[in-house]
Amino acid sequence: MTEFDVIAHYFSQNFPKRTDVILGIGDDAALCTGPNGMQIVVCIDTLVEGIHFPVKTAPADIGYKALAVNLSDLAAMGATPAWMTLALTCPEMNETWLKGFSQGLLELAKKAQVSLIGGDTTRGPLTITIQITGLVPEGQALQRSGAQPGDGIYVTGTLGDAGLGLASIQQQLKLPVLIQEIVESRLNRPTPRLEIGQALRGIASSAIDISDGLIADLGHILKASGVGATLQRENLPLSIALSESLPLAQAQDLALSAGDDYELCFTVPPQQDLALQKRLKTGSYTRIGTIKTGNALHCLDEKGQIFVPQKKGYQHF
Amino acid sequence: MTEFDVIAHYFSQNFPKRTDVILGIGDDAALCTGPNGMQIVVCIDTLVEGIHFPVKTAPADIGYKALAVNLSDLAAMGATPAWMTLALTCPEMNETWLKGFSQGLLELAKKAQVSLIGGDTTRGPLTITIQITGLVPEGQALQRSGAQPGDGIYVTGTLGDAGLGLASIQQQLKLPVLIQEIVESRLNRPTPRLEIGQALRGIASSAIDISDGLIADLGHILKASGVGATLQRENLPLSIALSESLPLAQAQDLALSAGDDYELCFTVPPQQDLALQKRLKTGSYTRIGTIKTGNALHCLDEKGQIFVPQKKGYQHF
Repeated sequence: MTEFDVIAHYFSQNFPKRTDVILGIGDDAALCTGPNGMQIVVCIDTLVEGIHFPVKTAPADIGYKALAVNLSDLAAMGATPAWMTLALTCPEMNETWLKGFSQGLLELAKKAQVSLIGGDTTRGPLTITIQITGLVPEGQALQRSGAQPGDGIYVTGTLGDAGLGLASIQQQLKLPVLIQEIVESRLNRPTPRLEIGQALRGIASSAIDISDGLIADLGHILKASGVGATLQRENLPLSIALSESLPLAQAQDLALSAGDDYELCFTVPPQQDLALQKRLKTGSYTRIGTIKTGNALHCLDEKGQIFVPQKKGYQHF
Repeated sequence: MTEFDVIAHYFSQNFPKRTDVILGIGDDAALCTGPNGMQIVVCIDTLVEGIHFPVKTAPADIGYKALAVNLSDLAAMGATPAWMTLALTCPEMNETWLKGFSQGLLELAKKAQVSLIGGDTTRGPLTITIQITGLVPEGQALQRSGAQPGDGIYVTGTLGDAGLGLASIQQQLKLPVLIQEIVESRLNRPTPRLEIGQALRGIASSAIDISDGLIADLGHILKASGVGATLQRENLPLSIALSESLPLAQAQDLALSAGDDYELCFTVPPQQDLALQKRLKTGSYTRIGTIKTGNALHCLDEKGQIFVPQKKGYQHF
């Protein structure tokens, strides 16, 4: 049983249903009735030291990332951030650590214009939970479930950089200093694609953020939408940093399977292609495949042959 | 620096202010603009194994308590619960544990009619964070800051039982089985006073829930309201279980200082005394003191002499 199944299996059944809950467990965030024709978008994410970030990560980076991964969920819903709460568990009250952590958190909160409205601090092993609430015009939230055969599959930015950053921090390979800085920053300070998510309202048929790896996260769209897909390996967007650091096949494997990039993966019906080109900046997104009937996800190599990628996306259980 | 100061010191400054946030950090919950003339009430609480519940606590009790402490915050705001999210960190995916935990959580969720709208499961030391969202009619939320000199100070239920329950579980004393069951249940399955909190809208001038002990939590009301208070020791409501288990003075010390009872402490102006008697059931609440000018909290013994209670309320740092 994976972490995805735990919530679905034990917690999504039997709980009271309310008419003001439009979308519950199973997407990047939940949707509830909100003020003034808006819907409330709610998501929660936990980071545990040694699991979601390496033990020696700078406190400011931890603060930044804890918010970034939640904002990324809002981005995948097409929502605008509003309010956040923080539950911080740490082994001791270290003022230097707290100062660094809060500065990193604040830096991104200012960029995203999100208010901190509540918090709880407890003693224990370092664990950070942020819940964030956003707003989206009624009926316009992006969900995982709307992809249709024929829709194009797109991703923002480049893939695999955070995976290379992790390999670098874990000293699995030695990179030039400049590249090291770039890819470790991609791991420690991911950029939530809020503007792109908001621009995709009314255009994308489905969306998700890539936290566990492209194949795993696209898999969630396919499952929720009841469709299959083909991916063209040669179309995967790779950064110069990644391309220069690894042989092409290895770089592509990272792009397919490594987590923590926090780019968006989304689908767009052919009739919205023009709107998509108008709404998003050229170069900010790349088409990587097509939604198909069935339920299989096929990765195609440069000759159009199906191949099986090296490893599955990261699973916490 | 205490846990209360950590959030205030590091996290309440400099974050973006939004006009739809009516009340931010520093009360039992935050208040934001909500749908249809309602305000949204948000709070978050974390339980860590070994800190907030004993290591051998039954999983169903942990699930029940994790929700109860959050519902108690909503009760202290006079809010009606609506939606919750769960961030669950556990060392391994133990199906028996998860089943028990979810059953306890569900049992209380059904009673309180709260929907589970999102969750995150991660691997790590056992830590449970629940954020809960409630609704309250605009302007009617109970806050910590409204107490005025002359207001009566009241508590719901009885105090000190959970403290006795903890002492029993920690084998600091041996209790008869029946009493043991009662007081351990008060520790493991506290009753959030939701109906009373809602009934106090428009009547109480301030309210808080007693999680860290009466003196500590009443202290928050006094600080937020800029007032002092006197408490009459002989008026502290004690259960039969507690009275029969300890000498009176010790029982009163527990009632003053022990945490985890999750009763409400609230203040009511004299002109609302009649409304209070009509709204709440006789026996469900007790007057224990009076708000005064100044900023001191004086505990008076049976002769009207000031005395200093034995220990301060529980602080996580």
